[in-house]
Formats: sequence, structure tokens, C-alpha cells
Amino acid sequence: MSASASNSELPRGFSFAATACGLKKSGLDLALLVSETPAAAAAVFTKNRVQAAPVLASQAHLRKSRNKIRGIIVNSGNANCCTGPEGYAASAATTLKVARELGRLHPSQILVCSTGVIGAPLRVEKILRAVPDLVRARRASSSAFAQFTRAIMTTDTRPKRAAAQFRLGGKWVRLLGCCKGAGMIQPNMATMLAFLATDAAIPPAMLQRALRRAVAATFNCITVDGDTSTNDTVAILANGESGARKITREGADYKKFSAALESVCRKLALAIVADGEGAQRVIEIEVCGAPSDRAAGEIARTIANSPLVKTALAGADPNWGRILAAAGRAGVAFDFQRVSIRLTGITVCRRGREHPFSERVAHKRMLAKHVPIAVDLHSGRGRARMWTCDFTGEYVDINASYRT
Amino acid sequence: MSASASNSELPRGFSFAATACGLKKSGLDLALLVSETPAAAAAVFTKNRVQAAPVLASQAHLRKSRNKIRGIIVNSGNANCCTGPEGYAASAATTLKVARELGRLHPSQILVCSTGVIGAPLRVEKILRAVPDLVRARRASSSAFAQFTRAIMTTDTRPKRAAAQFRLGGKWVRLLGCCKGAGMIQPNMATMLAFLATDAAIPPAMLQRALRRAVAATFNCITVDGDTSTNDTVAILANGESGARKITREGADYKKFSAALESVCRKLALAIVADGEGAQRVIEIEVCGAPSDRAAGEIARTIANSPLVKTALAGADPNWGRILAAAGRAGVAFDFQRVSIRLTGITVCRRGREHPFSERVAHKRMLAKHVPIAVDLHSGRGRARMWTCDFTGEYVDINASYRT
Repeated sequence: MSASASNSELPRGFSFAATACGLKKSGLDLALLVSETPAAAAAVFTKNRVQAAPVLASQAHLRKSRNKIRGIIVNSGNANCCTGPEGYAASAATTLKVARELGRLHPSQILVCSTGVIGAPLRVEKILRAVPDLVRARRASSSAFAQFTRAIMTTDTRPKRAAAQFRLGGKWVRLLGCCKGAGMIQPNMATMLAFLATDAAIPPAMLQRALRRAVAATFNCITVDGDTSTNDTVAILANGESGARKITREGADYKKFSAALESVCRKLALAIVADGEGAQRVIEIEVCGAPSDRAAGEIARTIANSPLVKTALAGADPNWGRILAAAGRAGVAFDFQRVSIRLTGITVCRRGREHPFSERVAHKRMLAKHVPIAVDLHSGRGRARMWTCDFTGEYVDINASYRT
Repeated sequence: MSASASNSELPRGFSFAATACGLKKSGLDLALLVSETPAAAAAVFTKNRVQAAPVLASQAHLRKSRNKIRGIIVNSGNANCCTGPEGYAASAATTLKVARELGRLHPSQILVCSTGVIGAPLRVEKILRAVPDLVRARRASSSAFAQFTRAIMTTDTRPKRAAAQFRLGGKWVRLLGCCKGAGMIQPNMATMLAFLATDAAIPPAMLQRALRRAVAATFNCITVDGDTSTNDTVAILANGESGARKITREGADYKKFSAALESVCRKLALAIVADGEGAQRVIEIEVCGAPSDRAAGEIARTIANSPLVKTALAGADPNWGRILAAAGRAGVAFDFQRVSIRLTGITVCRRGREHPFSERVAHKRMLAKHVPIAVDLHSGRGRARMWTCDFTGEYVDINASYRT
């Protein structure tokens, strides 16, 4: 996935900037997204009981501004979480500074996000000092957007972006998104930072509905390590600058928009899994024949988070017994003697027991970048899909000394 | 922990044997425990929906024999799980063979356990061929018991045993136990194989009650990787050969027995965690101040299974933010701004934010073999304790190619 967007992909009326303000030891760590006119905004946030100061600040700003937002400021290198009253003050000061530099805006028109280590005090003065130049440097260009995508990274090895376009009544509408995330990833509303900008015209309530649906089917269906972050945020701004007619009800226009939104969210979510800490491959887990969709989801998630399944996948070992054992502990009632499992298209288990297959062939296929696992419980019509990555020694290396 | 029990620790009337029947590439893989007279038996089994053939066979035998058992036969190298009707036939044939060789016993007087890879057909003929010599070779000696403890191992790096003695009315009563387990360990009733033998005289129903309680406080409070095995079994035989008076009610004698049982179970459970796949250290997680004991347990378990917490512990990194973030996703309501956390006795977090501490000192202390973590939610009187181990690259290495 390339980090550069062609200028034609850029939604009208948005500009971007990034800089290195010194929160990270080196590299870009402060990013700004601006809609030059007020945009309808929608967002979903982490469901973790521990919520970072910027999450609380952004939620308050959305309420106060009635979902009319002008910009999003993001820092990496520090999550500003578990930082006490000073943490809230830092988020407030950041939005106030951006609002002033953009020209007499109310701070509630600015959203703020942070990502990085939890619990360390945020040295907000570094951010405040950098904001004026950052605001001035903003550009409506693909290279500025590429800088933005890099500045929000932490343990990510590459920037992640996706775009879509569609026509409404003869006018092109553009949707552009990017995200960061590689560890502390487990579905529960949003599970990382993602920013989406569109020049569609759509009221905030409809935008929120479309975002919730898209997130449920994409970001909420991925997991890297089962750990839900304290800072997860997916935010979208829609400024209507495309000139296309306004989406006012759940008709054909809304469907086009929702499909584009879901496609961008899916690409971004899969990019996170592919860049999962230490990951070699993406695992797609499809569960069907469950008593309900919910039951299928529980089983898919338990398989996706099983260290034994994920390490077997690191070794491209067709150890289907671990997949079935993980399903068995998901808290869902089913008869395992009906279960069949396909690994990379090869039936390895039927009626709860081994189906003859070539280990050599299966192993070879499992070395691919994308490994599908299909589990059929033959116990109903419920189905679900989850994406995860394999679990390697590199994940351990990355996380054994994250702070030091 | 030494594998050899002194002969004086051996409960009266029990004998042991082990052999290499060829299920493993090399080493002991078949073990036998015999009570020379009928013993009261109690057992707890895995709650995984996927249950191995020997688990189902042993459950049936306990019912049929009304909990009067003479012996336990155990193989390692193959779990005999997801092996279809042939798997059940194999477990039945094994107990039948042992029962005959011990002298016209009913097969239901024999329990059977298997541990190893899931889904591979069990070559039961290897077991059947080895049983006659195995039965003849049994001895009431500490070296025979040591062989037994080795023959049940899979990825374990060392055998695990524990013993206790106490006096009842002037007579010594002995309790001896051993277990195996290093991976696929997460509390849900029993979580591995453990075998306990005592010469106490106690009726099966009281024995079962005492075992359930002891397991709830010990084996069910450990986790290595969150994966519940399909073959978990904890079984105890009590043959009354000590000559001590029979325990008939929940009085002082029962309390002595229960205390000894819990102490042996705790030692065995902690030995499993210490020998967790790739583990460098044991982590003891104590949660207090929770809305309820159950809530405390959920939080303790979520922390204990968090890959981010466990990898930080591998690096002896005092990254308390990950501990609090894991607590926050446990599904329990609490105010994180009241939480305090102590790491190896050092307060690192108070009122949900960092409490000044020396990272260098904390890091040094975290290099110990035993690292206590204490989380106080200040939101009630519920408490719980869990034991786990750190998560290292070696765990990944062991499990990336378990079958190949």
C-alpha cells in the first residue's frame, strides 16, 4: 500500500500538515487535518473503561459544537492517558491553540487525538510551540497527506491509507482515509486511530449512522493481540465541498456513500492487521453454521485471539486441533462432532475429526500472505468473519521493551 | 522442585509404573497409577465444549463404578481428541486391558487420560502391547513415582510434584500429587492433568467436594496462554490404607484434609505456571477494592492474559499503563481515577496516574523469579488472585512448530 494519494483523490476543501515537535526521539509526531469550511463530523471511541484525556475532550467538543468540526490535531509518541488533570488541561490547551491559529474558532470545533505510551506526562509545551508553523504549513496536496499519515504512526512499519470515489447526480464525491495501529488492537468499537475526510454533503446524524455500521463490519472485526486501546478513535469529517447534492435520507445516495465508506474502512482495517506487530500474514477467520451471528462472532474472536492458533500460523503449521479447541472454549454451545474446518481451502477436519490431507501441501499454502480459515459448526445459520495476524517472536521483541 | 519423593511420602497401598511405548519419538509416554485396594475417587474435567475421548470415558467410568477406582492409565504424545468413534474405542480398549491385567477388574474401575497433539489418530495398539509389562512393573517406590511424573510430560521442561502429611487421631495420613502442563493453560475447572493419591479414608462425595474447592482456589487461578485444553483432568484416589479414622463429616478432620489437599494443589498449580512455555518468571496478580469477587476475578484474568502485559513482564518493563488498560477492557465498571497499582512492592500508579518511582529500581526488581502485581480499584471489597507467567519469544518458538 503506497502512502501517497494522487491529488485527484483528495476531497475538496481539506488540507493537511505534519511536523516533528520532539515527542518522539526522532521523526514526525504532530499532525493536523483541516476542513477549510465547517464539516459535519461523526466519531466512535474506545469502550475501554480507561479513556485517555483526548478521547474525553473530543467527545465533549462534538457535543458542544453539535458535530460541526473544522480540524483534528493528532500527536504520536504519548497517549496522554492516565495523566490526571494535567492531561485534560493539555488536550484543552492544544485545541485552544489550534482554534486560535486557524482564526478565532471555538476550541470545540477542533478534535484532538493522542497515541503512544500510557501514563507518561505529556509535554504539551512542545505541541503548543509547534502549532503556529503547523497551521501555516497546511496544504491541500497528496504529499501533505502522506506526511500526515506518517506523523500518526507509533510501532507501525508503514503508513496506511485508502480512498474511494463515486458519482452523485453527475458530481464526483471523494472519500479519503488513513489510520495507525499495530499493537493493542482488539475490536470494541474503534480500535486504533483512523481519520476520514469526504467532500460529501451529509448531515451529522446520518454520517454517524453510516460510520457506526461501517466500523462494526470492519474495524470491529480485527484483532492483533486482544488488547483494547485506551485511545481508540475513528473520526470522519464531511464538508460538502464536492458540490454534489446533499444526502438527506437513506436512499440510493446514502447507499453509495455507505458502500464507499465501508470499502475504505475495510481497506484500512486490513492494513492494520497486515502491519500487526511482528506479523507475517493476515488470517481471515470465517465461522458459519453457528446458533446465531453473535455466537459465530464469539467463536471467531476466540480463535483469532488464541496464542496457540496464532503461533501455529506463524509456523505455517496446519494444527487444526488448536482451532477446534479454541472454538470449544468460546462459551458457545455446539456439538464438536459436526464441525468441519477448511484451512487455505483444504478440508482438514470433518465431523470433528481429521480429514485426510497432505501436511506438506497445507504447510506450503499457509506460507502465503493471506490465510483463510473456514469453520462450519453445522448447528445453525449464524455467521461472522474476523481478521487477525500470526503471532511471532518479533511481537514479543517489540513489546518486551517498548518504553526502554 | 525435585522429581523424587522420599518413600515415607508415599501414601500406603499405591504403586506406580512408566514405560516408553512409542507414542513419543523418544522417552517415557505411558504411565500407570494403581491403588492395590478399591479407592474412593473424585475428579474434575475440562469445561471446553470439545472434550477428548478419555475425558468422556473417565466420566462414564466414575458414574458406573460409583466412584470406586483401582487405577489410572495415562499416555502422553497424543491427546486422543477429535479422533471419532475410534478414539472412544481406543480409550475403552485401554481400560479393558489394564483391568484384565490387574486381575479380573471391571473396566469402569480404571480411569484413562491422554495428553499431546489433538486430532491425530491414537495408535492404541502400542499402548495395548505395553500394558502387561507395565502392570507387572508397578512398584510402591519413590523412583517408580518419579518415572510416572516424567511419563506424563509433553512440553513440560521438568516433572512437577507435591506432597503433604498430617495426623488424624495419632495416625499419619499422606497425600501425594503430580501434574503436567505448560501450554494450553487457562483456568476453567481443571486446566491440565493432575493426579493425587492419598491413604486417607473419605467417602467419594466428601472427596469430590474437597477437590472442587481446592481446584477453584488453585488450578482455576492460573493461566499461561488463555487456551483451555480439551483434556484437562484432576483426579484423586483415596484408599484409606493409612489406617487413620474415616473422615465422615465436615469437622476438624475434614478441614485438615482439605488444607493438605489445597496446599498440594497450590504447589502443583504454581509449578505449572513456573514451567509455562518459555516462561522466565511467575507473576502473581492480586486485585482488591473491586465491586465484587467476581469482578476482581475478571480483571485479574484479563490482566493475566494480556499479551501486552505479559511481554512487558518478559522485558521487566514497569509499563503499568498496560496493566490499567487491560483492567479497563475486562467488562467491569470502575472509576480508573481511583486505581492504584503496586509492582514488586513499588507504588507506580495512584489515583489512575503515575506515582513517581525509579524505573531503574523497578526494572531490577522485576528481573526476579516471582513478580507480584497489586491492583486496588478503591471501588468495593471484592478481591481475587491469579498466577501467570511472562510471554517470551521462546513460547512462540515452541508453538510455531509443535507438530512438525
